Amino acid sequence: MSDHHTYKKIELVGSSRSSIEEAIDNALAEAAKTLSHLEWFEVIDTRGHVVDGKVGHYQVTLKVGFRIADS
Amino acid sequence: MSDHHTYKKIELVGSSRSSIEEAIDNALAEAAKTLSHLEWFEVIDTRGHVVDGKVGHYQVTLKVGFRIADS
Amino acid sequence: MSDHHTYKKIELVGSSRSSIEEAIDNALAEAAKTLSHLEWFEVIDTRGHVVDGKVGHYQVTLKVGFRIADS
Amino acid sequence: MSDHHTYKKIELVGSSRSSIEEAIDNALAEAAKTLSHLEWFEVIDTRGHVVDGKVGHYQVTLKVGFRIADS
Amino acid sequence: MSDHHTYKKIELVGSSRSSIEEAIDNALAEAAKTLSHLEWFEVIDTRGHVVDGKVGHYQVTLKVGFRIADS
Amino acid sequence: MSDHHTYKKIELVGSSRSSIEEAIDNALAEAAKTLSHLEWFEVIDTRGHVVDGKVGHYQVTLKVGFRIADS
Amino acid sequence: MSDHHTYKKIELVGSSRSSIEEAIDNALAEAAKTLSHLEWFEVIDTRGHVVDGKVGHYQVTLKVGFRIADS
Amino acid sequence: MSDHHTYKKIELVGSSRSSIEEAIDNALAEAAKTLSHLEWFEVIDTRGHVVDGKVGHYQVTLKVGFRIADS
Amino acid sequence: MSDHHTYKKIELVGSSRSSIEEAIDNALAEAAKTLSHLEWFEVIDTRGHVVDGKVGHYQVTLKVGFRIADS
Amino acid sequence: MSDHHTYKKIELVGSSRSSIEEAIDNALAEAAKTLSHLEWFEVIDTRGHVVDGKVGHYQVTLKVGFRIADS
Amino acid sequence: MSDHHTYKKIELVGSSRSSIEEAIDNALAEAAKTLSHLEWFEVIDTRGHVVDGKVGHYQVTLKVGFRIADS
Amino acid sequence: MSDHHTYKKIELVGSSRSSIEEAIDNALAEAAKTLSHLEWFEVIDTRGHVVDGKVGHYQVTLKVGFRIADS
Repeated sequence: MSDHHTYKKIELVGSSRSSIEEAIDNALAEAAKTLSHLEWFEVIDTRGHVVDGKVGHYQVTLKVGFRIADS
Repeated sequence: MSDHHTYKKIELVGSSRSSIEEAIDNALAEAAKTLSHLEWFEVIDTRGHVVDGKVGHYQVTLKVGFRIADS
Repeated sequence: MSDHHTYKKIELVGSSRSSIEEAIDNALAEAAKTLSHLEWFEVIDTRGHVVDGKVGHYQVTLKVGFRIADS
Repeated sequence: MSDHHTYKKIELVGSSRSSIEEAIDNALAEAAKTLSHLEWFEVIDTRGHVVDGKVGHYQVTLKVGFRIADS
Repeated sequence: MSDHHTYKKIELVGSSRSSIEEAIDNALAEAAKTLSHLEWFEVIDTRGHVVDGKVGHYQVTLKVGFRIADS
Repeated sequence: MSDHHTYKKIELVGSSRSSIEEAIDNALAEAAKTLSHLEWFEVIDTRGHVVDGKVGHYQVTLKVGFRIADS
Repeated sequence: MSDHHTYKKIELVGSSRSSIEEAIDNALAEAAKTLSHLEWFEVIDTRGHVVDGKVGHYQVTLKVGFRIADS
Repeated sequence: MSDHHTYKKIELVGSSRSSIEEAIDNALAEAAKTLSHLEWFEVIDTRGHVVDGKVGHYQVTLKVGFRIADS
Repeated sequence: MSDHHTYKKIELVGSSRSSIEEAIDNALAEAAKTLSHLEWFEVIDTRGHVVDGKVGHYQVTLKVGFRIADS
Repeated sequence: MSDHHTYKKIELVGSSRSSIEEAIDNALAEAAKTLSHLEWFEVIDTRGHVVDGKVGHYQVTLKVGFRIADS
Repeated sequence: MSDHHTYKKIELVGSSRSSIEEAIDNALAEAAKTLSHLEWFEVIDTRGHVVDGKVGHYQVTLKVGFRIADS
Repeated sequence: MSDHHTYKKIELVGSSRSSIEEAIDNALAEAAKTLSHLEWFEVIDTRGHVVDGKVGHYQVTLKVGFRIADS
């Protein structure tokens, strides 16, 4: 067994009509469809578009780190 | 009709006793009183003041982008 | 009485299973155990770890400012 | 006559189908409709949207500085 | 009475032949001609031009925050 | 149909002997070979190498965002 | 005697009604009440609040470095 | 043959118990398992975790650039 | 037992005549004299002074995170 | 022959009435008058002054790297 | 006569026992000994060392821009 | 004797096949060939190129500060 690991980070933008937290959840759920070993996320940017003077969607850019299998 | 638009961005600080999202909403509602064509927002900074060891108000600085009419 | 004050800022990481706001609350509550005169906070970084493809804990780094007593 | 001036900076997003330079021109032309004494601009960000795998519009965020009249 | 306020921040460049502090004063004095409820400023950038190998003018870019009336 | 989407951003470096715009085009064309739903790009860095005291190639680093299919 | 030292940096906000320099002095004076071996400071941020359209207080955030005794 | 190339950059975190250089090596070795044409790396961040008051692992975040085949 | 923890980060500058890694070790060793539960470090800045055209000491600024006991 | 080189980077501001690319060319041409071994450039900042509501000159700040002879 | 100029920027650290402004003056005076056509300066960093709990010297890092003769 | 000094900072890129520290040494050695009074360095960027999936050379960008003689 190796005494060290290597991780990869990808950058995603999750969106939600309700909250910043839900936008993060949505991005993680999408990532988990194809990636295993998701370990952490980092919020890079929070923005959104506006509809009728209110938040239409929150758009949260995050980096998601996962361990490379067998690394 | 023009094939391009110009947008202006203004910087606001919204506040709320409850949540970061509500502070964003409050700033957008204030902007919508005098501006049309609000299209997006970008969160620049999140802070707040503390009262009795708890959050008194969240203060969220955001840039709000709107299309300049007839641009 | 002095006509000016001096403040100190410390850097904390609060965590929560539920929300960014609760992670801020938890850090402030911890700070309030030993410090008086807490006046403001600034969110520096928002991240978290992932468990089973979902947010395990939000981890929010914040700076907390307090007035130095008798300053 | 004053021995100093005060300037204001506003933030605009110009767009163009053709080039970064034309997006800057378009934003300045829009600003010049309502403001006098435009003196300088600073490019803050360059981005765009993609249509059919090609640049649809360049979107250039710039700050535009102008002297406040009678300052 | 509202339990929260909204603030707007504008970006100014004040100048002075004498000092950084006076450049800040000059920008605030200009802002106060047309705006009420000025509450705080943040220095963004300090620069100047040089005449005969000496400072000709200090040019201090600052953001000035003011409360939006009736917010 | 989902009420939200998730996007992924990848980082590319496009190059061109002629212009910054063409370097962006070249990177987008390469991305479009294998990815659908390209939606936007952000210029991160502009540099190049020099040959005989002139620009040899412009090298433009950009992030390209695309919608994840079925997200 | 050790051939190396370790230093700690703390973050303070000094304030003054008169000048940026005096705000720095005030923060250092406060630090010197309880810490020895102060060696350097770094200005992180300069801001202030506004009273009647003039500077009420300068608020200067600085990091102060001091040698840890016996390090 | 094309007169220009396109490169892709990925973000990895390499780790090592021994040194920053070895953490970089480990990340590159992992990348080289599946990617050809690796050309350069950029160190983005250096951190690590602590075990018994000593460095447990160095964790070095780097971007790795590689030429896209046939680009 | 609490379902969340709070961490504090302090900023140290370690130094060494030999290497960047040893400067990190020296700072951690100093921190471990008075703090328990050290968990991670982040390198903020690497510099040094020069003696006779060679590195005299490496000076590495790092933030060290530790869990607050009973948090 | 040495197995390594040392490079120096200088900072220039090129200007042009026509385009960003020409401003880069002009700065490189100026550098090439007195320096050999120019190898790369990095765009740091793009701005310009405005004349009659149009771009007067583009001003592009760039770092230019060159190999130190015999290094 | 050329319709454009090229400028070079150098980085200096001026120091003074009295004020930030005097540290800037001292750096400009030093630059003016050997360079003509100094046109502007930009403050990059303000720091200083501490003697007996007070400011020993202000140390102001600035970039100084000058026109290259005959450019 | 003057009661203050002025320093100049230059930007170099040192390289080495072996380590980050050696790349710093190589840059300092090159600087010391033509400059006296070298006093400190600051690491700005660490990168390198990759050969056969391994580090070919470390390339470390650093600023080197030296006192201007007779300042």
